[in-house]
Amino acid sequence: MTTHLQPGEFSLLTQCGTARAGLLGTAHGTLETPVFMPVGTQGTVKALGPDDLAALGPRIILGNTYHLYLRPGDERVARLGGLHQFMGWNGAILTDSGGFQVFSLQGLRRIEEEGVTFQSHIDGSRHLFSPEKVVSIQRNLGSDIMMVLDECVPYGADREYTAKSLQLTTRWARRCREAHPALDRGQLLFGIVQGGFFPDLRAESARQLMEIPFDGFAIGGLSVGESRAEMLDILAHTAPLLPQDKPRYLMGVGTPRDLLDGIALGVDMFDCVLPTRNARNGTLFTSFGKTNIKLAKYAEDPAPLDPACTCYTCRTFSRAYLRHLYMARELLAYRLNTIHNIHYYLDLMRQARAAILEHRFEAFRRDILAHYEDEATPSGDAACPSSPTP
Amino acid sequence: MTTHLQPGEFSLLTQCGTARAGLLGTAHGTLETPVFMPVGTQGTVKALGPDDLAALGPRIILGNTYHLYLRPGDERVARLGGLHQFMGWNGAILTDSGGFQVFSLQGLRRIEEEGVTFQSHIDGSRHLFSPEKVVSIQRNLGSDIMMVLDECVPYGADREYTAKSLQLTTRWARRCREAHPALDRGQLLFGIVQGGFFPDLRAESARQLMEIPFDGFAIGGLSVGESRAEMLDILAHTAPLLPQDKPRYLMGVGTPRDLLDGIALGVDMFDCVLPTRNARNGTLFTSFGKTNIKLAKYAEDPAPLDPACTCYTCRTFSRAYLRHLYMARELLAYRLNTIHNIHYYLDLMRQARAAILEHRFEAFRRDILAHYEDEATPSGDAACPSSPTP
Repeated sequence: MTTHLQPGEFSLLTQCGTARAGLLGTAHGTLETPVFMPVGTQGTVKALGPDDLAALGPRIILGNTYHLYLRPGDERVARLGGLHQFMGWNGAILTDSGGFQVFSLQGLRRIEEEGVTFQSHIDGSRHLFSPEKVVSIQRNLGSDIMMVLDECVPYGADREYTAKSLQLTTRWARRCREAHPALDRGQLLFGIVQGGFFPDLRAESARQLMEIPFDGFAIGGLSVGESRAEMLDILAHTAPLLPQDKPRYLMGVGTPRDLLDGIALGVDMFDCVLPTRNARNGTLFTSFGKTNIKLAKYAEDPAPLDPACTCYTCRTFSRAYLRHLYMARELLAYRLNTIHNIHYYLDLMRQARAAILEHRFEAFRRDILAHYEDEATPSGDAACPSSPTP
Repeated sequence: MTTHLQPGEFSLLTQCGTARAGLLGTAHGTLETPVFMPVGTQGTVKALGPDDLAALGPRIILGNTYHLYLRPGDERVARLGGLHQFMGWNGAILTDSGGFQVFSLQGLRRIEEEGVTFQSHIDGSRHLFSPEKVVSIQRNLGSDIMMVLDECVPYGADREYTAKSLQLTTRWARRCREAHPALDRGQLLFGIVQGGFFPDLRAESARQLMEIPFDGFAIGGLSVGESRAEMLDILAHTAPLLPQDKPRYLMGVGTPRDLLDGIALGVDMFDCVLPTRNARNGTLFTSFGKTNIKLAKYAEDPAPLDPACTCYTCRTFSRAYLRHLYMARELLAYRLNTIHNIHYYLDLMRQARAAILEHRFEAFRRDILAHYEDEATPSGDAACPSSPTP
């Protein structure tokens, strides 16, 4: 049984080294942290229905403001009762600000003090995302956790650009908070630390944002093309700067290895398209490491994909059948693979949390990492809004 | 509660005019006829899992021998425990002979006394389907109802060709029966009446086939490009020629209207890709007729797709959400639309059966047809094996 916390209430239950286990209250239930949030860009976790989600048991999923604003439109979603009702999902929802997607529209957007103007990837129409606008959109969507508009500085940006940008991010963050006063705890609001790959600028960004009463803090601007070592360096530097008594969210990261390393460094929340996107490419996470269902060795293999897994896919089907579905491009392949990968991620987080609570996290982490070699996190969720999906 | 019949046992419970309600025993349960069989070409009813099927409740589905023979291969399926185990489906399965698909491979196949040679649409490799071979494949698949190899005469074939062809179909039918003696009732074997659009040739084909001890009789060679009136003419002529005490199966047909007309003319079994293929095109069957979820009028409509429907899709989601999923090409759209259309077809058959048992079928049929205008059945399932599917 989970204690029921009020929205915005964060309870740090224990630490194991710098790894944390906690609880975060939202208007749609209390989250057990560390937590992984499956990505539901356009009002559905790709290939899954809410019945599948109910069986998998995440307590929170992520929606993308950029996509939902353009289609079906946040005002329309509001008139239809909000995003939860629209998609038939009664758990918590975190929405990003849309900034990350907009900044990935190279050449189609312009940044000004007021906000960022961009062209829709769907029809080329022009739009402005200001801090006030992205708060308004997220209020219309009714998300439980809203994110401020920030500038995600591209990898390789110089010190001067990064320093100037983080000031803008702070001014935008303040405007977001003013547009949604801290008194309103039905929808939480998180700030986002920027500062690129300059430790002192990360510290400056964190310091400025912590002056604003946010319900939590995200670390943005990672997983943008840097090496894994660079990412972990910045993360190890930045996480301890953040308040102990607020949740910390590492945006758009990552692999199982990234998650465990992030947890070790004190991160509480994660999201990434990796388990869902990989599922659609046939790449599956298992207790014996990453594999691909296309491999010829599975063609006649009657065993479940992962004999140690308890998901619907592994309880019901053979590797041979999953491979057949994938090779035949059957729609069911995407659903069954996604069910498995999301189950893997959620279970990994449940196990990590139990390990923290039992003060054996490092041993657990080493055990899992033996199966997962170093690999890059893909650049963040829906970075290419126009990329084809099966 | 359904009485449990032995495989091959057919019990005609009642007739209402020429419409029939009955029971047919198979090795995987007893079917209530008239029955519609959802099409699961490649070992999955497209977009659905066996969990979805269990919720929808068909007692029988159809698999395509041509596709399963080529991929993953019938011998492989046999080594994996048969098609039921392979796809996680415990209800009955009917498999076609593969002939229909092969004959639709224009230019790639050659018909001889021995059988039909053809080239795979996947890799161009050469294969022979003989009567013995298609029985062997279907035995490997372990289907509950197997179909004989027949020549599906193209629409427009002249009398001479058709007369010669039906003789070949009879010789092939006899060879199929010999390859799978009637004593073996674990897997039933149905003959297929051909004879094109010549009533006397249909009679001749039926007469010849009825000399062979089949467990049921299909009417093939319809829905191949003819008008609806032509199809009904031939059906009205052919169905009464078949034994009263055996099930009658109209292959590859059709629309809700076709099903009700077929039932009225004494048909017991149907299959068609229409509900599943239409679902993937956004075309949905409802109590108020056919509609398309793409229509702009649904963009902000909070009502269920069909307020009279009890399927998961209609119980859970709004028209607005279904339209959004479809417009955004989300994979969930295909599953939810397919669930609805299959539910519609199965429910239509359940209602038709109840109406026959209560001797009010004609009133029921008129009531439904008021919502469904005349339209052509698409040419049969998987007629174009290489056609793209979403």
